[in-house]
Amino acid sequence: MKKIDLINCHNKIAPYIHRTPVLTSTALNSISGSNIYFKCENFQKMGAFKMRGATSAILQLTVEQKKKGVVTHSSGNFAQALSLAAKSLGVKAYIAMPSTAPQVKKDAVKGYGGIITECEPNAAAREIVADEIQNATGATFIHPSNDVNVILGQGTAGKELLEDLSDLDFIFAPVGGGGLIAGTALSAHFFGTNCHVIGGEPYEADDAYRSLLSGKIESNKTTNTIADGLRTQLGNINFPIIQNHVDRIIRVTEDEIIISMKLIWERMKIIIEPSSAVALAALLKEKQQFSNKKVGIILSGGNVELSKLPF
Amino acid sequence: MKKIDLINCHNKIAPYIHRTPVLTSTALNSISGSNIYFKCENFQKMGAFKMRGATSAILQLTVEQKKKGVVTHSSGNFAQALSLAAKSLGVKAYIAMPSTAPQVKKDAVKGYGGIITECEPNAAAREIVADEIQNATGATFIHPSNDVNVILGQGTAGKELLEDLSDLDFIFAPVGGGGLIAGTALSAHFFGTNCHVIGGEPYEADDAYRSLLSGKIESNKTTNTIADGLRTQLGNINFPIIQNHVDRIIRVTEDEIIISMKLIWERMKIIIEPSSAVALAALLKEKQQFSNKKVGIILSGGNVELSKLPF
Repeated sequence: MKKIDLINCHNKIAPYIHRTPVLTSTALNSISGSNIYFKCENFQKMGAFKMRGATSAILQLTVEQKKKGVVTHSSGNFAQALSLAAKSLGVKAYIAMPSTAPQVKKDAVKGYGGIITECEPNAAAREIVADEIQNATGATFIHPSNDVNVILGQGTAGKELLEDLSDLDFIFAPVGGGGLIAGTALSAHFFGTNCHVIGGEPYEADDAYRSLLSGKIESNKTTNTIADGLRTQLGNINFPIIQNHVDRIIRVTEDEIIISMKLIWERMKIIIEPSSAVALAALLKEKQQFSNKKVGIILSGGNVELSKLPF
Repeated sequence: MKKIDLINCHNKIAPYIHRTPVLTSTALNSISGSNIYFKCENFQKMGAFKMRGATSAILQLTVEQKKKGVVTHSSGNFAQALSLAAKSLGVKAYIAMPSTAPQVKKDAVKGYGGIITECEPNAAAREIVADEIQNATGATFIHPSNDVNVILGQGTAGKELLEDLSDLDFIFAPVGGGGLIAGTALSAHFFGTNCHVIGGEPYEADDAYRSLLSGKIESNKTTNTIADGLRTQLGNINFPIIQNHVDRIIRVTEDEIIISMKLIWERMKIIIEPSSAVALAALLKEKQQFSNKKVGIILSGGNVELSKLPF
């Protein structure tokens, strides 16, 4: 992937996404000892950065492909993102969703026009169902994170952040399936000035941390984290980008995630989901190393069940 | 109060306050049928518009008065606002606070440097304690809402909103002690172009609604509302301004407040306190009348106990 690919991707998706604001907080600067610039993808359409990648992936389809629709398996933000992006572009979106997914998430997907097929709540079942949908409809499968065009789309958040603040020393992003951190790393590489990218990952789903150590893709041993967006598995397309362009990954505990989430809610008066808090938690964990630096943090999303808060 | 008074007040307090952003929401425009511009005083310093009035009131004191400090009675945002504004200006702030006030609020006041004297939780007791502090220290009493300089300060939120959007048809603000709605009405009068101001008030604390009807200051019959910032009593300084410059007040139920609060949390991903939601609730209650109009809504504050949410 080249610089021009990211520029072209950004130009193409710009009419369909929000250019999200960058917020600062005197209180959090004081707590961290660094100067933090929060890229607020919680204010993105459908409430998460996933809208960028989903739009990017659909836009590069041929007219013929668009006619037949798109399909993915997801119980989270990508299901909503693909549904809304497809709707904006006049394309059908088929979503394989575990039967156990919360009703509120099913309703959100339906609200954006997504066509849900329920499946058993395991990885094998959802892949089989997605395959069946592909065969029956001719729809194009779009992976939530392990897809070149999705990665480029997710990278546009970091590109915008660096357009606003060209001299960032670091950008922190959470690591789930790897699409956001890979795209962010490409943006820092192409558009930053010696800007280093650092991932935040829960100890409870640390496949990317261990994969960077071993040099090959490792599996999650547990996914018992409150950061529901980060329970997914690293992919073979984003992993080499992460190896090449991400400095390192800092792991955080569940308590550290919740403390950071509460700090942002209370001090910044904005709603972020637990996955977003992982990036701030990673910065705070090793804050001495980032003292007085200019640090971008990508707040990945704001979709949270208000009746199930951890505080 | 004249136009120049508001301009001078704004110039004086500007270095000590945030110029808060104005946000929009496609979803809420769609729900309301109007074009809403939310003035985000939840992002103000200490989390509420009260910072404006408190700063304004302290800044007009003489050097001699400033030396002796300021005193108020409040269990809510004004206690924090006066403490922080006083700290910013090198002045002591004495706060008479009911002994039953939540520890989190006492801690917040102390965190901003306020000096708390606890009193029995009733209006008579807190006035006596405030008097005693005045006598003992020579501090100047500053009322949270019934004070000319406080009203001017609170009016600067509306002034900024009209600087950003000069052609607003309406501005909605919540009505508690009356300082915000009176200041907003002055701003609309001086800086708007036929801009009408409408108050939102809980049925459970509807002193201002009934006062406008009867033509004299009425007392709250109950204060059993979740909108804790609006339980206070209208004053004799702000009431005539409200009579002259506020179109009318729309009353809302507790359920309507909670629904509007949840809408803003879920759709805008920002944290507002229940009092802030009263203004949107009032608009939604009679939305047919504001169809396709440009409507400003002052989101008064974002200080809420996260462990005690109504949803």
